[in-house]
Amino acid sequence: MIWNKEAECMSREELREIQLKKLQKIVKRAYENVPYYNKKYTELGVFPEDIETLEDINKLPFTTKDDLREGYPFGMFAVPPKEIVEVHSSSGTTGKPVVSGYTRKDLDDWSEIMARGLNMMGIHEEDIIQNTHGYGLFTGGFGVHYGAQKIGSIVVPISTGQTRRQIEIMKDFGTTTLIFTPSYGLYLAEVAKEEGIDPKSVGLKAIGFGAEMWTEEMRKKIENDFNAPAFNIYGLTELMGPGIAVECSSQNGLHISEDYFLPEIIDPNTGKQLEEGKKGELVLTNLEREGMPIIRFRTKDITSLHYDKCECTRTFVKMDRITGRSDDMIKVKGVAIFPSQIEKALLKIDSIEPHYQIIVTRPHLMDEIEVKVEASPDIFFDEVKEMINIKKKIEDYIENEIGLRVKVSLVEPKSIPRSEGKAVRVIDKRDLH
Amino acid sequence: MIWNKEAECMSREELREIQLKKLQKIVKRAYENVPYYNKKYTELGVFPEDIETLEDINKLPFTTKDDLREGYPFGMFAVPPKEIVEVHSSSGTTGKPVVSGYTRKDLDDWSEIMARGLNMMGIHEEDIIQNTHGYGLFTGGFGVHYGAQKIGSIVVPISTGQTRRQIEIMKDFGTTTLIFTPSYGLYLAEVAKEEGIDPKSVGLKAIGFGAEMWTEEMRKKIENDFNAPAFNIYGLTELMGPGIAVECSSQNGLHISEDYFLPEIIDPNTGKQLEEGKKGELVLTNLEREGMPIIRFRTKDITSLHYDKCECTRTFVKMDRITGRSDDMIKVKGVAIFPSQIEKALLKIDSIEPHYQIIVTRPHLMDEIEVKVEASPDIFFDEVKEMINIKKKIEDYIENEIGLRVKVSLVEPKSIPRSEGKAVRVIDKRDLH
Ligand SMILES: [Zn+2]
Ligand SMILES: [Zn+2]
Repeated sequence: MIWNKEAECMSREELREIQLKKLQKIVKRAYENVPYYNKKYTELGVFPEDIETLEDINKLPFTTKDDLREGYPFGMFAVPPKEIVEVHSSSGTTGKPVVSGYTRKDLDDWSEIMARGLNMMGIHEEDIIQNTHGYGLFTGGFGVHYGAQKIGSIVVPISTGQTRRQIEIMKDFGTTTLIFTPSYGLYLAEVAKEEGIDPKSVGLKAIGFGAEMWTEEMRKKIENDFNAPAFNIYGLTELMGPGIAVECSSQNGLHISEDYFLPEIIDPNTGKQLEEGKKGELVLTNLEREGMPIIRFRTKDITSLHYDKCECTRTFVKMDRITGRSDDMIKVKGVAIFPSQIEKALLKIDSIEPHYQIIVTRPHLMDEIEVKVEASPDIFFDEVKEMINIKKKIEDYIENEIGLRVKVSLVEPKSIPRSEGKAVRVIDKRDLH
Repeated sequence: MIWNKEAECMSREELREIQLKKLQKIVKRAYENVPYYNKKYTELGVFPEDIETLEDINKLPFTTKDDLREGYPFGMFAVPPKEIVEVHSSSGTTGKPVVSGYTRKDLDDWSEIMARGLNMMGIHEEDIIQNTHGYGLFTGGFGVHYGAQKIGSIVVPISTGQTRRQIEIMKDFGTTTLIFTPSYGLYLAEVAKEEGIDPKSVGLKAIGFGAEMWTEEMRKKIENDFNAPAFNIYGLTELMGPGIAVECSSQNGLHISEDYFLPEIIDPNTGKQLEEGKKGELVLTNLEREGMPIIRFRTKDITSLHYDKCECTRTFVKMDRITGRSDDMIKVKGVAIFPSQIEKALLKIDSIEPHYQIIVTRPHLMDEIEVKVEASPDIFFDEVKEMINIKKKIEDYIENEIGLRVKVSLVEPKSIPRSEGKAVRVIDKRDLH
């Protein structure tokens, strides 16, 4: 069963027609109601009536996180305050946070896209969803919550932390679905085992990943730990929240709800649109949003789009899982490195744990990169010669992946700090400014 | 304007008729669908058809928190899992937690009662509600959230903590309504002042108090700090969550949504119903709940009911704010003491801060009670003689309130730990088991 077959399986022609009408309407609404768009479009001499085809979106300027920050707090809202019913906000670790505003219809739409996503994961009204994402200004918790309410499944809004209680509830409630960041999932499995509970025994039906980059190998490890398939959930607070794209049962890409979001892939350096299948920066445009329509948002997320037929019969385009960020990729000795590449290399090797940290330094005007990796308990107390062999093997594998020789340190099991939210994978000690 | 005039202002006769019908229906539903009620009623020889008048509720046994605990996790549910859409849970500091289950209609009803409450506080769709209650298994955050969504006001689901960010957002967003526990409100005001921001300058319209006992004097202090009226919100996770009763503009009692909850006041020792106006333990019965109907729940909260006309024109009964708990009252030298009594005494005295802690010990087989109170900065570094006078004055005032002489210690300003949730007022070091 498909949650909204009429929408999710419509033909490309019909979809493009709908998208064009929605794009024209939202660009007009943004231009007329948001001073930011009005000013920018006027300056560039581009106007809503210039959008005659979907390709004409190229005429419009991009919107960046900095643009949104400048509108702090409510400058990007396109409706009067009395029509806004909820606000969320990005973390604001650098500078002012971005505030995201929702009308009642926006919340309904958010519930709809996440309901589609939970449905793709095989969730029905009988399922018990334990949602370990944080609730609050962050959209993580609420997206799944609203989607679950729409589906009518049982949501357990336990939020982040209290790991031992999470495990107890999982067992006592008979949780069928866990929502977590991959690094928290690894931690949960680890703590469960410490408590003498095999995560497999919970009898999970599905796992939802969110809010963090991961690798195929990490998915396999988690799927194996919990004996359940894990699906990728993608979202951005600026555009809506989790649910913009979710993976279907074929587990090889995330269907974007294209009746709500228009995706493009651009070259992050030139801003030019790239053709189907090419890797680049994802740009998203809200097609329905009332409270805060965002046009051509540069997500900084690196992925690619695939329009070929999916075996699930949904026709919405599939995006690859995010393999990096156009901004947080590490440039070392001129080489762009993504933590996911390191991870990919590590997960190919036995005798180590999938916990690692990348430390970048510049001791003598030259970049140095060190990868700390946890040895597994049985190897750590083994012969030194064996340790040296493994270390060399990891260095080879990483070099193979990123084209650069790095220094690898094998550290004691459980010595790398565990995270209850996003894992801190990169510690950049260089002064890059 | 009254949110639901038809319900909130109906005549007592009409209300009693509706309540009886609902009571008959829910007792029947509980008896038929929940093994706990079925067994208990059968044992006592009391059956749904014995409820012929509202007074017949006296024939039914009470339900206690322990009864609910025994049904952990889902034993009290009256519908199959697929009809449950959300679960919450009490904190479970002692023993197993109580799980509370909601159908879609239950969530709608919860939104409705909280919408009535926000309306009583003068909140409209233009208002910006900064909700500092925690989201998660606890119902605190979600009650206000759902009510605000129903009203259509803007909810900022910031949750607990991050006090400096709370203050920044309050100022930047132009928050009109703050929801907090009284002790967190005091802390917020204190931190704002430290940051050079006068809490009065925020321009609040209303404050909602929840989840904690407080005194009239504490309300005055908070209202004065923020220059806004503060309203009491009452709720229990077992029965629903916040919104069961909320204070109207006359600020002298909380209107219970009597079409959803049937209130009684009983003598906590004998279990006998007490007449109007008498102080005793509040007992509540769900009249509408589908997911988990709770019949005659002993709340342990001490209050009284008043059926006289309210100037706001609402006809629903008013309960006094909670002045104690029938279980957590401290018995010292055989005297029952409520922290609220100590607080009341303290707030009558100048030169001290409203931060205090009650420490109960039993050093020589006799109870001793010490009250630690913060001196205000201007007095603390003053003459010792003045300090001794104030100490004696506090001891007199407390004795007047509780009928017992206690030891008072004046401590340094800001030396008593501040709380971001419920304040820890009583430290009982006696072995009472
Ligand atoms: Zn598919
Ligand atoms: Zn009233």
